[in-house]
Order: sequence, then C-alpha cells, then structure tokens
Amino acid sequence: MASTYQPNSKLDLTFERVVDVPIELVWRAWTTPEHLMPWFCPLPWKTVECEIDLRPGGIFSTVMRSPEGQDFPNEGCYLEVKDKEKLVWTNALLPGFRPAASSAKKDSTVEFMFTAMIEMKALAQGTRYTATVIHADEAGCKQHAQMGFHEGWGKALEQLVAYAKKMQP
Amino acid sequence: MASTYQPNSKLDLTFERVVDVPIELVWRAWTTPEHLMPWFCPLPWKTVECEIDLRPGGIFSTVMRSPEGQDFPNEGCYLEVKDKEKLVWTNALLPGFRPAASSAKKDSTVEFMFTAMIEMKALAQGTRYTATVIHADEAGCKQHAQMGFHEGWGKALEQLVAYAKKMQP
Repeated sequence: MASTYQPNSKLDLTFERVVDVPIELVWRAWTTPEHLMPWFCPLPWKTVECEIDLRPGGIFSTVMRSPEGQDFPNEGCYLEVKDKEKLVWTNALLPGFRPAASSAKKDSTVEFMFTAMIEMKALAQGTRYTATVIHADEAGCKQHAQMGFHEGWGKALEQLVAYAKKMQP
Repeated sequence: MASTYQPNSKLDLTFERVVDVPIELVWRAWTTPEHLMPWFCPLPWKTVECEIDLRPGGIFSTVMRSPEGQDFPNEGCYLEVKDKEKLVWTNALLPGFRPAASSAKKDSTVEFMFTAMIEMKALAQGTRYTATVIHADEAGCKQHAQMGFHEGWGKALEQLVAYAKKMQP
C-alpha cells in the first residue's frame, strides 16, 4: 500500500495503480503548472490555466475548458505537502485557509466540497500511486462517483503517464 | 506586530494585546485540554469537553455549555501548528481534513465557517498576542462581529491571563 489512510467507504472514493514512471516525474507532473496542464483534464476537456503555491495554505487553482469552450474555475489550497510522498488539497478552503463560500462552487466543475490526497511510493520499477477523495457527506460522494470519478481520474492518470514518458530524457 | 498576516477588513476580525504572561503558558493554555477548558469560554458559559490532536489534520473540538445547560459542540481540525508561535484551525474541515457539511453547523455556537489564527511573540516581559478570524464572506464576518467577537475573545483572553497566573509556580 502506498497509503496509510483508511478510507470511509460511504464518504471517500479511492483508487490505486502502479505506473511505470519514476516518482520524480509523477511528483513534478502534480506540482508544476507547466507539467500539470498537459494531462490534468481528461480530453477533450483542457486545463487552460493553473496556479500552484506549493505550501500549506498556498493556492492550487485550475481553469478547465469544456469542448464547447466554456471555462470552469476551480480554486483551493494545499493542506499537506510532503516531497515525492503526499499531496493534500481541498476546495473547502481558499488560499490563506479562508473558508470557501458554498455559493462560489456553482461555477466550478464540482459543486461539492472535497479534500483530495495523492500519495506515491517509489517501487523498484515505477511508482505506486493512490488517489483518495474525501467528501463531506454521502450525497457529495455519490454525486462524484456518478460524475465518473474512477473513469476521470483513471484517464487523467493515463494522460499523466503518457506525458511523463515524453518528459523523460 | 506579532502577525505577518494582512487582514481583509471586510472578511476578517482581529485583535492584538500584550499580556503579562510568559509565552510558554499562553501556548500551553491553547494546546492542552486541561489548561484550555478553564478559560476558553466567556463565563457564565463553560467549556465542558475538549479534544486536541496537535498536528495538521488533527482534531480540535470543544463542547460549550450555556448557562441554561444546553450543550453546543464545535468540531474542527488544525491546519498549522508552530510551537509557541502560531496555531491555525478551522471548522470548515473535520479531523483528517474532511470537509464539514454546512448543515452540521446548525447545532454549534457558530453557524458560519471560519478559520482562526492565534499568533504569539515573546517580549522582554510578557507576550504579544494576536487573534485573527477569517470568514468566507461579509455576512459571516458581520454575524460574528455582532455576536460580540471583540468582547468574547477579549474576555476569554482575560480569563486565560487570570488562569495562567495561577498556573505559574
């Protein structure tokens, strides 16, 4: 297991994969805007903006563009940053830990509050990768599952892997 | 200034005081249940329960009892813990960084989401003490001001000082 977190089956969504990409590249793909934007959104959606301030309370924001050209901003902040090990952020708090107004979520791709945790562990070959999304209630968790959490995060990870292979020297 | 944070005058409430109590006792009064409960709630309200797990994501919960004997639970988690320097927590996230459901705030003493920051700095004599409460929107900030933020936090600090003076050897 890459993760030490015990998910709550009614409130959390999680998946784990082993990818044949070195941990350094997985970390870089998650923590630098130029290396995050190419893979973060399952095509044909695109990530057209990204801001990262990699420290607890620092901004993590993206703008996702739909195939029809509509932009959806997502803003949150990091909660935990452990180099090449763990990255936690939430959309329930804005930069500087300011609580997000529920009403502000209406324009985002996700209307519910969540905390997301990416954990990774270097293997002899490749990286064990765990993504967990923690919700406030069963309704938010169900809504996220129905939006296609597993397909979406899985496809994004496949895009990350394909991109990282091009990054490698 | 004890604080490096630039408050937003429409969204944040803040006050600063110099108290004649050593920083070690101020920190202990904020971070151990047995030393927090005696002063945390302005009398005649009382703090009848307290749980502290002093790390980012760890629980900070209290139960406040009204003079009429009604109990109000408040649950949140720490975001930043810097020994004898800075303590940040929020009620927008539960322990383990799980977003709090808005509906769950109805039974608490405060219905709005906030992040609170206590900063302290040792002086030649005593401690400079800054409390800042960060809100999601102007409505929450106003509501908190009208609930008596300055009186309440001021009175609690006076109780802390009186208690800390008894703690001293």
